[in-house]
Amino acid sequence: MKVEHKIWLADRGKAFGKGPFMIMKAVMMTGSLRQAAISLGMSYTKAYQTIRTCEAHLPFKLIETQTGGALGGGSYITPQGKDLMEAFEGFQMAADLVLDDLYQVHLGPLFEPMVLLKEDACVHD
Amino acid sequence: MKVEHKIWLADRGKAFGKGPFMIMKAVMMTGSLRQAAISLGMSYTKAYQTIRTCEAHLPFKLIETQTGGALGGGSYITPQGKDLMEAFEGFQMAADLVLDDLYQVHLGPLFEPMVLLKEDACVHD
Repeated sequence: MKVEHKIWLADRGKAFGKGPFMIMKAVMMTGSLRQAAISLGMSYTKAYQTIRTCEAHLPFKLIETQTGGALGGGSYITPQGKDLMEAFEGFQMAADLVLDDLYQVHLGPLFEPMVLLKEDACVHD
Repeated sequence: MKVEHKIWLADRGKAFGKGPFMIMKAVMMTGSLRQAAISLGMSYTKAYQTIRTCEAHLPFKLIETQTGGALGGGSYITPQGKDLMEAFEGFQMAADLVLDDLYQVHLGPLFEPMVLLKEDACVHD
């Protein structure tokens, strides 16, 4: 038995979560929202709408798109978008650890009593 | 901005979460899975299948049903089911508190910098 979770930010609607995080990570790697969507097996429209929906609930933009130019345009993560990704990743990692600990305290004894009994037995060996 | 989450137990499939918890709470109040389903605006089949799916992933039963008898039968929560409900509720409450704290540490500064600035300003008043 293990604990699983899904965590997201909300402000009168979903503002950020693992989905948009993954899209932004792929944009960082590919330099393009279109390539990012392909690399995630997602339609461009779905990736675009996911990011735009978040931005409608956030006080800053996540991704800027440059069209044309010498390099043919592309997408990049805004500085505030990078800050949010970093903060969200730290938050997720801390949440994973803390929820695993809380699971052990509250629910572990219901599912792994045999392990505890064995350890008790060893003390008296 | 606030953090929202969904937490569940899994063991090669969803084993327990807020949905089954609510059904069990309603069974405790009504003494009947059928009445519990009605009070939650859910079909009996959906409530029954939710509980049975959990039980298939748990090492104990959650709800026992008595048919017939002087009182016309009904459903009740098993002792292990009660232990799980109590443990899950404690786990959820602890998780709520801890995730709010982690949100403040990791993400709060991105969304409420003005509050911090105001507090800083007061120090120098």
